[in-house]
Amino acid sequence: MGKYSLGIDFGSLSARAVIVDVENGKQIASSACPYVHGVLEELNGKPLGEGWALQDPADYKESMVTCVRNAVAQSGVAPEDIVGIGVDFTACSVLPVKMDGTPLSQVAGFEDNPHAYVKMWKHHAAQPYADRVNALAKERNETFLKKYDAISSEWLLPKLMQVMEEAPEVYAQADKFIEAGDWIVMLLTGLDRRNSCAAGYKGQYDPQTGYMNKPFLKALDPRLEHIEEEKLGKVVPSGTLVGGLTEEFARLLGLKAGTGVAAATIDAHAAVPAVGIASPARMLMIMGTSTCHMMLDDEEKCFKGLCGVVKDGIIPGFYGYEAGQCAVGDIFQWVIDEIVPKKYFDLAEQADMDIFAYMSKLAQESEDENLVAVDWWNGCRSPLMDGNLKGVISGLTLKTTAPEIFKAVVEATAFGTRRIIEAFEDSGVRIDQLYACGGIASKNRYMMQVYADVTGKTISVSSSSEAVAHGSAIFGALAAGKANGGYDDVGEAIGKMACGYSGAYVPNPEKQALYNGKYRKYVAMSDFFSK
Amino acid sequence: MGKYSLGIDFGSLSARAVIVDVENGKQIASSACPYVHGVLEELNGKPLGEGWALQDPADYKESMVTCVRNAVAQSGVAPEDIVGIGVDFTACSVLPVKMDGTPLSQVAGFEDNPHAYVKMWKHHAAQPYADRVNALAKERNETFLKKYDAISSEWLLPKLMQVMEEAPEVYAQADKFIEAGDWIVMLLTGLDRRNSCAAGYKGQYDPQTGYMNKPFLKALDPRLEHIEEEKLGKVVPSGTLVGGLTEEFARLLGLKAGTGVAAATIDAHAAVPAVGIASPARMLMIMGTSTCHMMLDDEEKCFKGLCGVVKDGIIPGFYGYEAGQCAVGDIFQWVIDEIVPKKYFDLAEQADMDIFAYMSKLAQESEDENLVAVDWWNGCRSPLMDGNLKGVISGLTLKTTAPEIFKAVVEATAFGTRRIIEAFEDSGVRIDQLYACGGIASKNRYMMQVYADVTGKTISVSSSSEAVAHGSAIFGALAAGKANGGYDDVGEAIGKMACGYSGAYVPNPEKQALYNGKYRKYVAMSDFFSK
Repeated sequence: MGKYSLGIDFGSLSARAVIVDVENGKQIASSACPYVHGVLEELNGKPLGEGWALQDPADYKESMVTCVRNAVAQSGVAPEDIVGIGVDFTACSVLPVKMDGTPLSQVAGFEDNPHAYVKMWKHHAAQPYADRVNALAKERNETFLKKYDAISSEWLLPKLMQVMEEAPEVYAQADKFIEAGDWIVMLLTGLDRRNSCAAGYKGQYDPQTGYMNKPFLKALDPRLEHIEEEKLGKVVPSGTLVGGLTEEFARLLGLKAGTGVAAATIDAHAAVPAVGIASPARMLMIMGTSTCHMMLDDEEKCFKGLCGVVKDGIIPGFYGYEAGQCAVGDIFQWVIDEIVPKKYFDLAEQADMDIFAYMSKLAQESEDENLVAVDWWNGCRSPLMDGNLKGVISGLTLKTTAPEIFKAVVEATAFGTRRIIEAFEDSGVRIDQLYACGGIASKNRYMMQVYADVTGKTISVSSSSEAVAHGSAIFGALAAGKANGGYDDVGEAIGKMACGYSGAYVPNPEKQALYNGKYRKYVAMSDFFSK
Repeated sequence: MGKYSLGIDFGSLSARAVIVDVENGKQIASSACPYVHGVLEELNGKPLGEGWALQDPADYKESMVTCVRNAVAQSGVAPEDIVGIGVDFTACSVLPVKMDGTPLSQVAGFEDNPHAYVKMWKHHAAQPYADRVNALAKERNETFLKKYDAISSEWLLPKLMQVMEEAPEVYAQADKFIEAGDWIVMLLTGLDRRNSCAAGYKGQYDPQTGYMNKPFLKALDPRLEHIEEEKLGKVVPSGTLVGGLTEEFARLLGLKAGTGVAAATIDAHAAVPAVGIASPARMLMIMGTSTCHMMLDDEEKCFKGLCGVVKDGIIPGFYGYEAGQCAVGDIFQWVIDEIVPKKYFDLAEQADMDIFAYMSKLAQESEDENLVAVDWWNGCRSPLMDGNLKGVISGLTLKTTAPEIFKAVVEATAFGTRRIIEAFEDSGVRIDQLYACGGIASKNRYMMQVYADVTGKTISVSSSSEAVAHGSAIFGALAAGKANGGYDDVGEAIGKMACGYSGAYVPNPEKQALYNGKYRKYVAMSDFFSK
């Protein structure tokens, strides 16, 4: 009998469990279960304010139990052959809990208090606190700004400050504030261990200085100086063993007590091991409405435009780098919705193709090389970190067609990626090869070839549509350890268990030369429009 | 009984006659007649080459006779009360004739020779000769380049050289080469007088130096040195009396012999007197697929971007200035055809509005002020004279709509006009007020208000859709002279006979301030993209 690992992925609206063969990475079962209350828009009849986004932690537990039991049943694997469990979660999704892990939302008297619930990653109502953090950090020229550029309202400290200021009764009664991923691990093991990925990227945790640093926290608000000891917890590398599954959860999930549970990780970051990246010089692009760029390196290098660089942030033993483009698929959708006249929809229908595929086909056939766009329809995250920047299309003529504009925006997003790659390379982080996963990457061959030609790098595209849960299963095998049929070495685990590839795109030297010229225009335009 | 003047307008596809009351400018009759052969695509069964555009001069005569007789009949005016005749024609539309005015195309043996016919204004097959003229003019740093920037293949000398090189038999047999407008006047009066408007704008005629200048023509080709004396003719100011109507044409047209006939003018330029411009500081915009800017001044000032400055070029006694934007209505049409998705057509239909009116309504209602476009979809004529420049749209976001893009291109064309106005003003040509005529100007109130707000100048829009023919009728009254019931003074003629206005658009100071900021962006973008 083989050994298997369980990966549990908590997304924004549902949990998904996958069961993966430890020996060869083959996924043998998958089951998803939506959260009963989804994203809360009101709380017991009272609407939430502008920018609020809450969830009920009870939903997480319930969905987890359902999807894990279903996946195990579907797999036909005996509980004792599931040797490890990994968990990934959206972040920062933070909740106040009692010492034993009970969410404050389940404590009598707090059921109607919105601050007692999970503040989801996309809760934006802590913006005034983020502004305070950034103003002071800038004033003090804090070194953590080099690694994160600016603190987002989506992150840990602003959310914590919001509770402290706006609901002191919740703050006082909360023994701890915990990432939902770490809370799941706490449920499963009884142990409070904070994962280095979320603590680093969302809490600015550094092993040397803790969360940000004490003098800064003290200057921000004396009540925050000892927040780490008072309300947070011990940080361990994501993917490493936290402890064994409790009797209670073994029974609830239909698994074996004592099964190794890994420290959690952020959902997007779990894609890195899933696509097979276990060493430096390989960048993963998670491509959807926006694109997230991740990679590993042996050293910490800071440069403008990073969303974060975190020790053990992605894979234990490496510095994990994250960068991003604010809008990618979103721009293509905008073109389809707001720029494409009826005639192309009619032609697509005649050709029995969906409109994206049809526009890609026309884009590929077009010989126009005059149009050059800048991909800032939703601002520029990396490398300029300026949400006010806006998109540009140049080279328009009376003969320009909508498919040519589609082509220009596809190329623009590729130029945006190339500029991020160059920001890494210019600061000494080598990039040899690209990997891609996500909806666009797996569906659009035209687009992936443009990316290969623009960047001059080969791109391997993941074959899995559930790469994130798969990555957690790899961490589950690592938590199991060799002695239990898993792995002791993360590189070995990834080498054996990574998803396969649906395709590899190799740069065409002729096209590369053409795009070099256009890319110079893109850079000149970027410089001009960001002045 | 009142006195009346006849204006005959020769356009690209038809001739039109209007009869106008000399006392008050009221148009009492109008009749048009298409040219039987339109634009020739083949000649006696043989297709013409790429870029060729010919017409048969016999068509002009035939259409003129028909439309003039119909207009006179329609008016009910007695022939002796029609006291003057004015003629305008597209230019440069040049034909070879015998000494008595017989077109070479009507001379035995030349019926099948394309070079024996009229080379229409849009005949582009003389480009190699234009290239030769420009190269040599640049090399010699000829001063006429200051007034014209570059010699177009549409103009006189390249067309003449094409005949000389490609059809020496036609060149040898042609006693003269003549603008079609001057040829019509020659038919009507028996006198060969070249109008200063076409000779100046299309032939680079200057009273001091003649056509270009002899040393230059000699250097270009020794056969051209004496072209003025050998094949061209005496130049007189447009709108001034050439002579009396011959017996033959009085009979053909049903008019009185001896009626005064004015020297011809170019069709577009005839709009200037029609809208009531008889003095400096007033600029006329003829707005259609492209926009032509015209005005008068007492002095000759040269600056980059002029299409021409010509003594007596528009109104006798003034320097006439011409500038232009290559694409205006054409860009709006492009937006409608290539950028506007079906939903807006559906909404327009529901609102029972045509799509242009509906998009203008949405544009007017839009509060977006981020989009800034540069109007170079068909290159930039004035002030940069660069056909390779292309259009730009900046400020795009995921919320940008097609009507907002429509708004941005309307504003961009207004910014383009403002930049032309500033080019005039910067070189000392004062502009106090704007006038507009043409299809767009009369139909789109939204757009005209944008132009007033962007330029900060009041715009009076002509009420006539036949302004060009009306302008010729004013010149007809001038040719008649006061003694015959017309006018001796051009200012008085224009003052009495100009068309009325359908509306005046006054700048809104608040909007003006807003557009000043956007215009600065437009200028910065123009500078960047024309580097």
